[in-house]
Amino acid sequence: MKNLILYFSVLTIILSSCYDSKKNNADLIIRNGIVVTIDSTGHIYPKGTVVIKANKIIDIGYDSVLSEKYHADNIIDAQGKIVMPGFVNAHTHIAMSLFRGLADDLKLQDWLHKYIFPAETKFVDSSMITIGSELAMVEMLHSGITCFNDMYFYEDLTAQMCCKIGMRAILSESLIDFPVPNAKNYKESMDYTRGLEEKYKGNELVTIGVAAHSPYTCSPNLLRKAKKLADEFHVPFHIHVSETSWEVDTITAQYDKTPIEYLDSIGVLSNNVIAAHCVWLSPKDIRIIARRGVGVAHNPECNMKISSGVAPIPELLKAHAEVGLGTDGPASNNNLNMIQEMHTMALIHKLNKMNPTVVPAEQVVRTATIGSAKVLGLDKKIGSLEIGKYADIILIDTNNANTTPMYNVYSNLVYASLGSEVSDVIINGKVVMKNKKILTTNEEIVMSSANKFAEKLKKELLDKK
Amino acid sequence: MKNLILYFSVLTIILSSCYDSKKNNADLIIRNGIVVTIDSTGHIYPKGTVVIKANKIIDIGYDSVLSEKYHADNIIDAQGKIVMPGFVNAHTHIAMSLFRGLADDLKLQDWLHKYIFPAETKFVDSSMITIGSELAMVEMLHSGITCFNDMYFYEDLTAQMCCKIGMRAILSESLIDFPVPNAKNYKESMDYTRGLEEKYKGNELVTIGVAAHSPYTCSPNLLRKAKKLADEFHVPFHIHVSETSWEVDTITAQYDKTPIEYLDSIGVLSNNVIAAHCVWLSPKDIRIIARRGVGVAHNPECNMKISSGVAPIPELLKAHAEVGLGTDGPASNNNLNMIQEMHTMALIHKLNKMNPTVVPAEQVVRTATIGSAKVLGLDKKIGSLEIGKYADIILIDTNNANTTPMYNVYSNLVYASLGSEVSDVIINGKVVMKNKKILTTNEEIVMSSANKFAEKLKKELLDKK
Repeated sequence: MKNLILYFSVLTIILSSCYDSKKNNADLIIRNGIVVTIDSTGHIYPKGTVVIKANKIIDIGYDSVLSEKYHADNIIDAQGKIVMPGFVNAHTHIAMSLFRGLADDLKLQDWLHKYIFPAETKFVDSSMITIGSELAMVEMLHSGITCFNDMYFYEDLTAQMCCKIGMRAILSESLIDFPVPNAKNYKESMDYTRGLEEKYKGNELVTIGVAAHSPYTCSPNLLRKAKKLADEFHVPFHIHVSETSWEVDTITAQYDKTPIEYLDSIGVLSNNVIAAHCVWLSPKDIRIIARRGVGVAHNPECNMKISSGVAPIPELLKAHAEVGLGTDGPASNNNLNMIQEMHTMALIHKLNKMNPTVVPAEQVVRTATIGSAKVLGLDKKIGSLEIGKYADIILIDTNNANTTPMYNVYSNLVYASLGSEVSDVIINGKVVMKNKKILTTNEEIVMSSANKFAEKLKKELLDKK
Repeated sequence: MKNLILYFSVLTIILSSCYDSKKNNADLIIRNGIVVTIDSTGHIYPKGTVVIKANKIIDIGYDSVLSEKYHADNIIDAQGKIVMPGFVNAHTHIAMSLFRGLADDLKLQDWLHKYIFPAETKFVDSSMITIGSELAMVEMLHSGITCFNDMYFYEDLTAQMCCKIGMRAILSESLIDFPVPNAKNYKESMDYTRGLEEKYKGNELVTIGVAAHSPYTCSPNLLRKAKKLADEFHVPFHIHVSETSWEVDTITAQYDKTPIEYLDSIGVLSNNVIAAHCVWLSPKDIRIIARRGVGVAHNPECNMKISSGVAPIPELLKAHAEVGLGTDGPASNNNLNMIQEMHTMALIHKLNKMNPTVVPAEQVVRTATIGSAKVLGLDKKIGSLEIGKYADIILIDTNNANTTPMYNVYSNLVYASLGSEVSDVIINGKVVMKNKKILTTNEEIVMSSANKFAEKLKKELLDKK
């Protein structure tokens, strides 16, 4: 009898391996989830499967079909989970995570001059950037961000951290018309940028962009040269524009033009431009943005917290402008959570227009994924789950009281989720976070380093006040 | 040698028990946390301890002092955690958790008439209230809510669930001038309320209040009778007021008075009134509210989502009106999370006033705790950690990337937290949630029942559309 059982067991193994050998080989299969593709039709597979080989999605469809077609050693069971493209954070300054909550509830000028500038002058160095970048990446992964667009200093260190952690990013050294922690003038920062372009050429995760801080902190000369550099390397040009009414008044007083009109007049607006904020736009500005193919990075929480205003997102969308969503830096937000940012985006425009039908949930989720990807010029590669795209995929646990029951997946993501429900993150085909645990670093050590930095800052800056 | 070790061990045990016997006995000690008292001075103990006997706080102070003074078998180590009073949800309709996300992004009238009213007519019964209440309580505990103020139907079942789960609440059967699921008219609902007043008299957790739905759905007669009933039992009188501009227009057309003026004119405004929303208030309304001691339950997320407007909270606070914070029902929010609600409260007023200094973080946290407790008439009993108050206490884990580093505890709670950081909940001296696990029910079964209900609703209501 025992021999008979052994015989049948061996037979079963042989048969199933023969059967499996007829299947196509894949590297990773995510099975049986609620697959929200964010493709052009917004298709959702209620029991769907995504098949990954190397760093790309090679198939996507109903589990009943694909589980028969593919074999992989690494299979993730996504039962009861949402499977969707990772969020793309369209505008941030991640290393500022170490300045999170340093000072709040202040007028912008007090906040900047009494806290942020002194802290940056004294504390921004290579160590701070490394610690702050790693802390921010840990935070971003936990909320399902798989790609971000950063503007700050020492971006080489942030790039190295992307390679260590396994995150996708566009990283741009901030060019500005005064000395910065790692450069005496913008020419040095441009040289630094050129060096990084060479260093990260062909890197699968990191794209080095070019950033000019803003129309009010950069001369026309700087702006033109920076744009030329971005065009030379065919990379994005990242800039803050029309964030506050003060900025619009200042630029208008100088040039008799709105910031958008002014930037257009000096020839720096085209489809590789990522314009962060765009809160104060005239109807003409909106037409220029749409015509030039400028991407808008919307940052509603920061705009509310600093009392900047509300960006005219419904108008921009109506004009077919490209709109993405960003968290801005964690010193002014104060977190890097795209689910929370989606929630705020959905609510603020309903209030601002006194119309509960504007900016519906699905549109918000599209803005935070494929919308941001378009703004970053990466929509052919990421932002949706489609065959041939990079496998930047997140799994979101729906088995929480706050997301139960689920009548509509978009509503649940935008209105009911908290931003802590993401369980697994795959970037470029690699599992970077599994069951809420990041596999590419030690989170406890990262937080401990951040706390040590904060203790020093408290002692040397805050306690002396 | 072995005997010597044994001898000293026994001696140590005897000595320490002698020493312990000099200590005062307590039932539960929460040690070594960042104790945010929310007392009148806003005192914080960076390494603090809270001592609990039966259902009350008997001492609070520095751990170094109190750990020498008290003994308890049950000691919670709160190292690295915030220890603070539980959040008090000042206005909600919790059983509507089962309608969360049923329909969104719609005009109020479409949402109500096409989805919510049909769903209520067909599905609100005793089973729905039981399942929905339990689901909501699980959700509320996870975000640190220890007390809530509810207005809905079949409140006896919600009261029973409070006793099972161990949550504190004020529960009021909604009185309204048309038939409701469990009553043909408001007189039946008033009889039901009287019955509950008797049944829950002296209950430590449940207070039965009286609720009249709103000035536009209740006749002056109903309003007066309901207020009289509340006064007779010395319990809160819960009502929606001035939620939308439509309501103000309607009441003004009928009575030539704003809703607040009208309610005042018929004698129903006094210090046991909990007025939810109060979005559209005139300066005179604000003076009346402050003078009468009416408590305002602010619900910013719902007000944004339904495009109602922004309540004049800075003005109300300036007039020394009592202001608390609530989530409103989960069908229109769509969650029951006070940390997320605090975040929205802090941001929306900064934008609305175009002033980043208004409604600072500490004020927001006070509103969500002692503020709401005052509005509910419970501020002598809960809302802060002070000797003699009920032990309604939450522990919040700060060891998350999004809350690292921590320069300011209020800033971290309001601007950086997501609402999922609460680890432990103590209500009325009893540990109800420990390490994110609720001890008084089976969360999986609760969610499974909710999902079954939703499947039925989908089939019988949504799929037929």
